Amino acid sequence: MYKIFKDLLWWTSHRIGSIFLLRVVLLLLGLLVWTKSNAENGYDLWLRYKPVHETSLKNNYQSVIKQISASGNSASLIAAITELQIGMKGLLNVSLPHVKTVNVNGTLLLGTPSTNAAIARLNLAELKDLGKEGYLIKSLQINRRSCTVIASNTDIGLLYGSYHLLRLIQTRHSIQKLLIVEKPKIQLRVLNHWDNLNGTVERGYAGSSLWDWQRLPGYLDPRYTDYARANASIGINGTVINNVNASAKSLTKTYLLKAAALADVFRPYGIKVYLTARFSAPIEIGGLKTADPLDPEVIKWWKLKVDEIYRYIPDFGGFLVKANSEGQPGPQDYKRSHAEGANMMADALAPHNGVVMWRAFVYENIKGEDRAKQAYQEFKKFDGDFKSNVLLQPKNGPIDFQPREPFHPLFGAMSKTQLMLEFQITQEYLGFATHLVYLAPMFKETLSTDTYAKGKGSTIAKIVEGKLESHQISGIAGVANIGSDINWTGHPFAQSNWYAFGRMAWNPEASPETIADDWLKMTFSTDPSFVVPVKEYMLASREHAVHYMMPLGLNHIMNLGTHYGPGPWDKIPGWNAHDYHLADAEGLGVDRTDKGSNAVEQYFPEVRQKYNDIKSIPPELLLWFHHVPWKYRMPTGKSLWEELVYTYYSGVSAVEKMQNTWDGLKDKVDPLRFVQVKQLLAEQQREAAWWRDGSVLYFQTYSKMPLPQGFKVPAQSLEHYKQIKMPDRTDK
Amino acid sequence: MYKIFKDLLWWTSHRIGSIFLLRVVLLLLGLLVWTKSNAENGYDLWLRYKPVHETSLKNNYQSVIKQISASGNSASLIAAITELQIGMKGLLNVSLPHVKTVNVNGTLLLGTPSTNAAIARLNLAELKDLGKEGYLIKSLQINRRSCTVIASNTDIGLLYGSYHLLRLIQTRHSIQKLLIVEKPKIQLRVLNHWDNLNGTVERGYAGSSLWDWQRLPGYLDPRYTDYARANASIGINGTVINNVNASAKSLTKTYLLKAAALADVFRPYGIKVYLTARFSAPIEIGGLKTADPLDPEVIKWWKLKVDEIYRYIPDFGGFLVKANSEGQPGPQDYKRSHAEGANMMADALAPHNGVVMWRAFVYENIKGEDRAKQAYQEFKKFDGDFKSNVLLQPKNGPIDFQPREPFHPLFGAMSKTQLMLEFQITQEYLGFATHLVYLAPMFKETLSTDTYAKGKGSTIAKIVEGKLESHQISGIAGVANIGSDINWTGHPFAQSNWYAFGRMAWNPEASPETIADDWLKMTFSTDPSFVVPVKEYMLASREHAVHYMMPLGLNHIMNLGTHYGPGPWDKIPGWNAHDYHLADAEGLGVDRTDKGSNAVEQYFPEVRQKYNDIKSIPPELLLWFHHVPWKYRMPTGKSLWEELVYTYYSGVSAVEKMQNTWDGLKDKVDPLRFVQVKQLLAEQQREAAWWRDGSVLYFQTYSKMPLPQGFKVPAQSLEHYKQIKMPDRTDK
Repeated sequence: MYKIFKDLLWWTSHRIGSIFLLRVVLLLLGLLVWTKSNAENGYDLWLRYKPVHETSLKNNYQSVIKQISASGNSASLIAAITELQIGMKGLLNVSLPHVKTVNVNGTLLLGTPSTNAAIARLNLAELKDLGKEGYLIKSLQINRRSCTVIASNTDIGLLYGSYHLLRLIQTRHSIQKLLIVEKPKIQLRVLNHWDNLNGTVERGYAGSSLWDWQRLPGYLDPRYTDYARANASIGINGTVINNVNASAKSLTKTYLLKAAALADVFRPYGIKVYLTARFSAPIEIGGLKTADPLDPEVIKWWKLKVDEIYRYIPDFGGFLVKANSEGQPGPQDYKRSHAEGANMMADALAPHNGVVMWRAFVYENIKGEDRAKQAYQEFKKFDGDFKSNVLLQPKNGPIDFQPREPFHPLFGAMSKTQLMLEFQITQEYLGFATHLVYLAPMFKETLSTDTYAKGKGSTIAKIVEGKLESHQISGIAGVANIGSDINWTGHPFAQSNWYAFGRMAWNPEASPETIADDWLKMTFSTDPSFVVPVKEYMLASREHAVHYMMPLGLNHIMNLGTHYGPGPWDKIPGWNAHDYHLADAEGLGVDRTDKGSNAVEQYFPEVRQKYNDIKSIPPELLLWFHHVPWKYRMPTGKSLWEELVYTYYSGVSAVEKMQNTWDGLKDKVDPLRFVQVKQLLAEQQREAAWWRDGSVLYFQTYSKMPLPQGFKVPAQSLEHYKQIKMPDRTDK
Repeated sequence: MYKIFKDLLWWTSHRIGSIFLLRVVLLLLGLLVWTKSNAENGYDLWLRYKPVHETSLKNNYQSVIKQISASGNSASLIAAITELQIGMKGLLNVSLPHVKTVNVNGTLLLGTPSTNAAIARLNLAELKDLGKEGYLIKSLQINRRSCTVIASNTDIGLLYGSYHLLRLIQTRHSIQKLLIVEKPKIQLRVLNHWDNLNGTVERGYAGSSLWDWQRLPGYLDPRYTDYARANASIGINGTVINNVNASAKSLTKTYLLKAAALADVFRPYGIKVYLTARFSAPIEIGGLKTADPLDPEVIKWWKLKVDEIYRYIPDFGGFLVKANSEGQPGPQDYKRSHAEGANMMADALAPHNGVVMWRAFVYENIKGEDRAKQAYQEFKKFDGDFKSNVLLQPKNGPIDFQPREPFHPLFGAMSKTQLMLEFQITQEYLGFATHLVYLAPMFKETLSTDTYAKGKGSTIAKIVEGKLESHQISGIAGVANIGSDINWTGHPFAQSNWYAFGRMAWNPEASPETIADDWLKMTFSTDPSFVVPVKEYMLASREHAVHYMMPLGLNHIMNLGTHYGPGPWDKIPGWNAHDYHLADAEGLGVDRTDKGSNAVEQYFPEVRQKYNDIKSIPPELLLWFHHVPWKYRMPTGKSLWEELVYTYYSGVSAVEKMQNTWDGLKDKVDPLRFVQVKQLLAEQQREAAWWRDGSVLYFQTYSKMPLPQGFKVPAQSLEHYKQIKMPDRTDK
């Protein structure tokens, strides 16, 4: 215990300087760190705006930005100017005056052609194609003065451009000779909050819901504004504020007025509020006897309800619906199709320009049915049937946000349907807020995958962007990892997943490496001796997690109750982990080839053939599609059993290396976050070993093969690992 | 909406200085505030340690405290020195060196006689009576150097003394010629957290539970340390970390190891961990068929369980038990008495010096039975039957933490029983985290009440202190208002109730005014033009809340589902608010005199007579004890009806005055908290009017009398107020 206390005391001590504590620190931790800064509690996310210490860079920045010129008084413009002023004050210690005209070198001119005459006079050709959210940042001469222009067609574009300019300084890029032309490639960039009205968050690992339903609308927590700032800074423009496992109560006037208050706070930051719509709401809060989507009374109820919502929230985004999925009500309860259900709601929303985001996550848990095939079977047939303001929302893979899945076969298969990709930012299957797993490489893996729907180059990114089939509306969603924890996301590094989602929603072709680089510099430190090694292990971290959890295409072998820790042996009512891995004396994996469930048939031929053939299947998806003999010779020359063991062990070793790297960076990180991450990495290491040892021992009961030479036998018996109990959300 | 945004932007803008925003602020809010400080998010509570700006005071403090001399390396001593160094750095901008000997004027000498030779040599007579937690702060000469000594018999005493010295500076008292001798008047000063294992907090209004059960014991949130610091600074020495509506799972090894990790963090700060014990745990987690407290297997199970707990937590405090109360299991399920149940657990704990805190909150909801009498009827007969390590824990009043209750008749009635008083710090019935209600005057009201148990002067304070009957153990508990919100308590002013509970637990005779004064200076500002008016309205705030909620002895007329807002008309299964006020055509109130339920009989004669006689009953308890005709002439000359209306209206007016006062203090408060409190006061004003209007209109349906002249008729109908829906914790 004493050690723990000292560790905690250690960061406390860094709030001050002290000879006494110096000795304690030296004694205990063998290393001296000294800082006078306030505790870095993570609240400020990537908007910390800490001073630029590099003198020449700082001088340069100061000479380029000396004052702001802008006209107009929209809330978004004020937000942009405020952010620039806060940011420049922090970064450069300058208070930027706001002036009317460009009268000195170093003016930052901000405006749209329609509201700012100086901008209009520039006749900026670049604005033509920038749409409503794009922006231009350009260095040029006005009245023979050196200026930086942030121009856009809307004030929201100015806000986005302002965050971009700040980011350049935060990441120590030059702000001279700028010519930046940016616009988002996806229109709807949306966070999904699985927040319940009682303040809990389904699959949330960072405290309770941000939304204080009891005190709304009267009390607007200042945190709402900071939430909006953070989202705007990465281009997120929509938020579904309640759980897909929805409560009809969220559509009652009481709650709508509260949602409207949130919308009021978010609006200046370009963020629309969406709600989930419980399909049975006409019964539950409407007093109707049915929720049949073809029933005239039901149609009328939804129309009136939608009209009511728009009275409170004039720019309401629309509905997200989970229907006939995991027990949720839906149109099939009335022998109607998903398309009929979605279109009924879409009709109600269309006059207000609202959309329906209809989830494609449907399956029935029936022995022998391949769950991976079911969404395709259910939805493919409706291609072309959805109204123009419906987006169909499949997850990235066909099962459920597993550490690794092949892409969802609906991508490419529904050319007449607007497909909105759903990622999970919250780490339901990737170590909650305990494991450091940077998800951008996983996002990238999906987005860059080629479906071959229209020949080579038919990437999921292009489909989601709507480019492949020239759709009207495009969208992408991420299940949020945000809660009431001071640092928003529980794990200090989980902030990077929120950040990366926003950046990749704006530009699905963005590089996970660049994003990690930016995030680290903005969130921790610009010191390359910190950024380079940490970035490297962030980029590798998801693969490490796959290795110690579910390597080689394994999936859904976690504890079925908590979704945490290994559970390949797990059975709970309605669920049997064995169905997902089918280990037997012969081998391991699920045959989804044309000899098996033939899930491969749902992919286009190029992909199908690659996955169908054990020779061409990428090893990381092997056991997803094939039941493979234990002695099968892998491309590495190892047998499957050896490869499995090797991969599990390598995942754990990698975490140990992350720990060493982190420990070596002690003098480059603020003490509070250093200790937090150090503790979390230690826990991740222990749990990675738990995953490895439990899984290897379990699969060994089928393979009957010894561990390959050089691999240490797990310290405990399989029984031990099976009996490890973790807290469960159902523990009251 | 625009207004809301600007309000929020206004505080954001104060992070920087800006000519542009100056204009916005002037335009919008008509007042200029300027600060360069970081946002005051409330996380630091009363331990902010902001610089002393008064030059001569600062110089004086700096001359008195120049260095620290201490020996020893216990965790508590290190915690004390660290806190002094953090505090002095913040307050005085000095880094106190730690030296071995007293060699200059201005040495702060810290130690116990047994571990510090310099202290031992002083032969401090004051230490003799200070016990294990008391301390002495004394200015004296050592080696002809002017020193300040903090001395104690234990290192925890040194920590308490250090916080006291810091408080003197925080509140701008002199630290010269000090002679402070302090020891707590109550031994067990305990917070009760009604925190569930799933992270929710029953009756919590400040986010989720602080305890991160999933990541414990591997990850120790740095916040745990700050929680311990805050508690130690006000003398709290125990914490029951889980809900009285208990889960047996909290006693499983999985959770015990997590509790042990918390205990490790808290120990250096003198805080013991306690757990609630579900009476049926032997069945639920022990696999026994019974939980009969006289069953040898059950006795053995508890003994082994307790032994196990002490292996993990050597200084475990003991159990808090809610048995046979509101559906909880208990000894009566087996025809055993509360005493038999408590004593069985006490026997298991006794060898380890643990205690049982057994709640006296029992009642059955039977029409015609006076709930106010039941705890007395149930427990009085067991006086003398409880083991020496049992404390019986009644609430302050006989019903349930209502805005005002008479004192609980068990106080004074059980001279052979150690009575532990239970207050509720969380504002279940006093406006959640929305209403500003300073509870110290309520605590004081109870503590200073004379029971006349042993003649005049038999105050509840003396009973709780154990002085009246010379008990071995004394204790006081407060149901915590702490959660994961950044500012811990939701409402910035709710922090004062946590603070006040600690201070009054240490010294039940402490003055609410002094405590408010200290808290305001430490938490907000030492400026008298801020402190004086705000202190005044803090002190009056509880009476205001009584006035607009439940005046003149009314109680339990809130909404029965949410416990929020008025509900004198409310009926839910098993509950009828009417039973609590019995309004009829004749009058209002519950006759508990000797003509009625005779609850007065449970008090000693002096009190009984005062309460029994409508002429001598204090008006603020009138309707608790008497059914009073609407036309009854009150001491003020008004009829009961007029008085009732007058009081309701005066409560709302008082809140309006609080709003005005606060608005006038804008330039004396940091902008973030100014806006938070401003919004909350506006909401409190609206809700006070809701209480008033709903209640007055409802009671008018019985009195059939018009509002007295000059009182504005409520804007809406009674039906309107009845139908206001508030979010409910059961809303999913």
